[in-house]
Amino acid sequence: MSVDKVLANAEQGFQASMARLFTLLRIPSISTDPAYKQHCAEAADVLVAELKAMGFDAAARPTGGHPMIVAHYKSKTATAKTPHVLFYGHYDMQPVDPVDLWHTKPFEPTLKKDKDGVERIYGRGTADDKGQLMTFVEAARAWITTTGSVPINATFLIEGEEESGSPSLIPFLKANKAELSCDVAFVCDTNMWDAKTPAITTRLRGLVHEEIIITSPSIDLHSGMYGGAAMNPIRAMSKLIAALHDKNGRVAIPGFYTGVAELPKAVKKQWASLKFSEKKFLGAVGLKSAAGEKGRSVIELIWSRPTAEVNGIWGGYTGAGGKTVIPSKAHAKLTFRLVGKQNPKKVLAAFQAFAKKQMPKDAVITFSGHGGGSPASEISEDNMFIQKSSAALKTEFKKEAVLMGSGGSIPIVRCFKDILGMDSVLVGFGLNDDAIHSPNEKYNVSSFQRGIKSWIRIMGALGE
Amino acid sequence: MSVDKVLANAEQGFQASMARLFTLLRIPSISTDPAYKQHCAEAADVLVAELKAMGFDAAARPTGGHPMIVAHYKSKTATAKTPHVLFYGHYDMQPVDPVDLWHTKPFEPTLKKDKDGVERIYGRGTADDKGQLMTFVEAARAWITTTGSVPINATFLIEGEEESGSPSLIPFLKANKAELSCDVAFVCDTNMWDAKTPAITTRLRGLVHEEIIITSPSIDLHSGMYGGAAMNPIRAMSKLIAALHDKNGRVAIPGFYTGVAELPKAVKKQWASLKFSEKKFLGAVGLKSAAGEKGRSVIELIWSRPTAEVNGIWGGYTGAGGKTVIPSKAHAKLTFRLVGKQNPKKVLAAFQAFAKKQMPKDAVITFSGHGGGSPASEISEDNMFIQKSSAALKTEFKKEAVLMGSGGSIPIVRCFKDILGMDSVLVGFGLNDDAIHSPNEKYNVSSFQRGIKSWIRIMGALGE
Repeated sequence: MSVDKVLANAEQGFQASMARLFTLLRIPSISTDPAYKQHCAEAADVLVAELKAMGFDAAARPTGGHPMIVAHYKSKTATAKTPHVLFYGHYDMQPVDPVDLWHTKPFEPTLKKDKDGVERIYGRGTADDKGQLMTFVEAARAWITTTGSVPINATFLIEGEEESGSPSLIPFLKANKAELSCDVAFVCDTNMWDAKTPAITTRLRGLVHEEIIITSPSIDLHSGMYGGAAMNPIRAMSKLIAALHDKNGRVAIPGFYTGVAELPKAVKKQWASLKFSEKKFLGAVGLKSAAGEKGRSVIELIWSRPTAEVNGIWGGYTGAGGKTVIPSKAHAKLTFRLVGKQNPKKVLAAFQAFAKKQMPKDAVITFSGHGGGSPASEISEDNMFIQKSSAALKTEFKKEAVLMGSGGSIPIVRCFKDILGMDSVLVGFGLNDDAIHSPNEKYNVSSFQRGIKSWIRIMGALGE
Repeated sequence: MSVDKVLANAEQGFQASMARLFTLLRIPSISTDPAYKQHCAEAADVLVAELKAMGFDAAARPTGGHPMIVAHYKSKTATAKTPHVLFYGHYDMQPVDPVDLWHTKPFEPTLKKDKDGVERIYGRGTADDKGQLMTFVEAARAWITTTGSVPINATFLIEGEEESGSPSLIPFLKANKAELSCDVAFVCDTNMWDAKTPAITTRLRGLVHEEIIITSPSIDLHSGMYGGAAMNPIRAMSKLIAALHDKNGRVAIPGFYTGVAELPKAVKKQWASLKFSEKKFLGAVGLKSAAGEKGRSVIELIWSRPTAEVNGIWGGYTGAGGKTVIPSKAHAKLTFRLVGKQNPKKVLAAFQAFAKKQMPKDAVITFSGHGGGSPASEISEDNMFIQKSSAALKTEFKKEAVLMGSGGSIPIVRCFKDILGMDSVLVGFGLNDDAIHSPNEKYNVSSFQRGIKSWIRIMGALGE
């Protein structure tokens, strides 16, 4: 059976694929906020029902947190050589605040042809990750509808805790090791190089979360009665954050760069040849110059250098008007992006030691990080699955796939390697301007459509 | 008519005085938050009704913000020498957050005998300023009930915007200059030296508000995709706040100390003789050492030195769990406490110039201070009204009144001098541990009772 017929079927059924995606997007499955727990379960149930109807052996399995979807498909055309491939995605999403900056309702997916003539789907989860995961679901559907079977043995693993650090994932993989160990994993949480150029990501930064509270006075104080005498925890917090980076944008925590290697010259040359426009990348979000380590390109900074970032800060009075208070506490949420062989636990320990040293008298710091964290991952470019996928993508896009890095973390890649012993091929159809984790998240209609077609081709190539 | 009979009447009627105070405390008249506008009007109406019933010519006068209560009483025993005295207080209150730190409901005043055997009234506004203003209202009531008249010509001016910078006050005083210009003003917004020692405050710090927003990227960014490349506005904000003070706790803004004189030796000596326990003062709120300029006593710091304080900070994700975001904006609310001849406008301009200089590339700072601000005030200790009040307090407490400073701002004092040409005598019965502006604000029952009795004596002394 020709792949072309499957592709034609997918094109014909594209409006129905869009409708199924919209149904999933309307469910506010925010995993980080306990208030949305029921909606996470609902999203899992909708997906399981779809997969069962397609002929998958699918279930939403209970975990300590949100359910884990596991769905198996035994190919009717399988030979001894047919690979068993795991496809990974996640049905959970980020919170939507600040809500007032959204131009559409975050949970009401909205199809818009923008002024540039491009059709986009706006809404939380469109790009991260519901739109992406539905590309492989719909590709499998097209294969089944057209030929009666998916051409490979497939396992779909779709989790509901990716945006909250995947606390249930490792125990689940360990408990179901035999069932989930496949020949390779495909992970669809990454971007294309641009709207016309596909990409496979081979380099991912790790991630460590930390949360800190600095306490100075035991109660909020009147800034007139105590101002000048009492330590203000916001002052101590600011001192710490200001000390995190030196004048050259380098992280100033002693020991932080242990395990960070300089980029191999060949890789540096390849990346330089991409003619990446820093001006355009930064300009698109209102910035003019790279804020990280001096003397390094933006690509180098986000793909191969570690960071110390403050994701949130709060303390004292933040309502309307003024309040003359010296607060008792100041709070901050931090994350560290890791590269090379940086060890998450050691980075956290180094930060905590550094932070304690920064504290002035009468400022007590406590740490309540979410624990765990994941080191960086690098995948060999000689991997056979990468090569087959690369060729399939080239056929679909008529352009060579870029083998790129990604600044974001996909801890699943390391888990698959360490626990299940399999490599991961990272293929996704997101774009840099998708505004994931931000207001007005979107997914281009072309990303969704060519994503589905690319998976049809990749599945076909692997089944030959 | 003997003052003693009036005092006896006040003692007899004390439970009724408490009941009236509790009625007023139950009204959440928070002036800084527009949501409570109607409650501010309600508090004003309740007070006006009370004062009318006592025989005052009272009204809640409209302003651009919350109403201003003006109530006149023409003494029936007046001679040509009888002074016309203005009593000032405010019926508005601070916000109550963080609400979860309150042990009682902030708007349900609660009388408790604490473990130390002391009876206290807990609730927002108990000490600041409803409890305090009701001391002179109830003193006047006792005089009227007992003798048929207040012994002096009295004007009560009770505003509803003290906690939000009194925007309507200056226009109101200017528009009603003839009506409100008295021989002297008594302001009841201050503290005693301790629970057994009365005080008159002669030195007040000024206050300037500022609010700043630092913008870096134009939208919130994913910290994986942009981390290391994009400036984080929280980092820029922290750099600015950390730079506000030098290593010795001195404010580092160039020109900030213009107009700040060293304390005269005599005053320094008097304050040293107070045997103020820094250990106790700081220890009561969980602190061990003075955080301000090195080499200065706590009393010196809070009564005679200026400050730069951050009252609130926020930016990025502050909800439950984590969010890997580089926010677009960071916010902070600041106040500067002023002393001597520091000029509020010049201090603000100096800060803004300093802040702009601190900004790294791609960080834009904007200012939205509430404007205005008030310089510091000092009142001559030779003032006749201070001397008479001091003697009356000594009779009531059997202890010399301390002539002290106060770190807090009471801008009304300067307005009374500049617009109405009258001096202010600052007598109040609050205590340092009243937790004003904080959770669990309280007012000692003894403060309320001896406050009423003190005003009965002061009114009597001034009417002789």
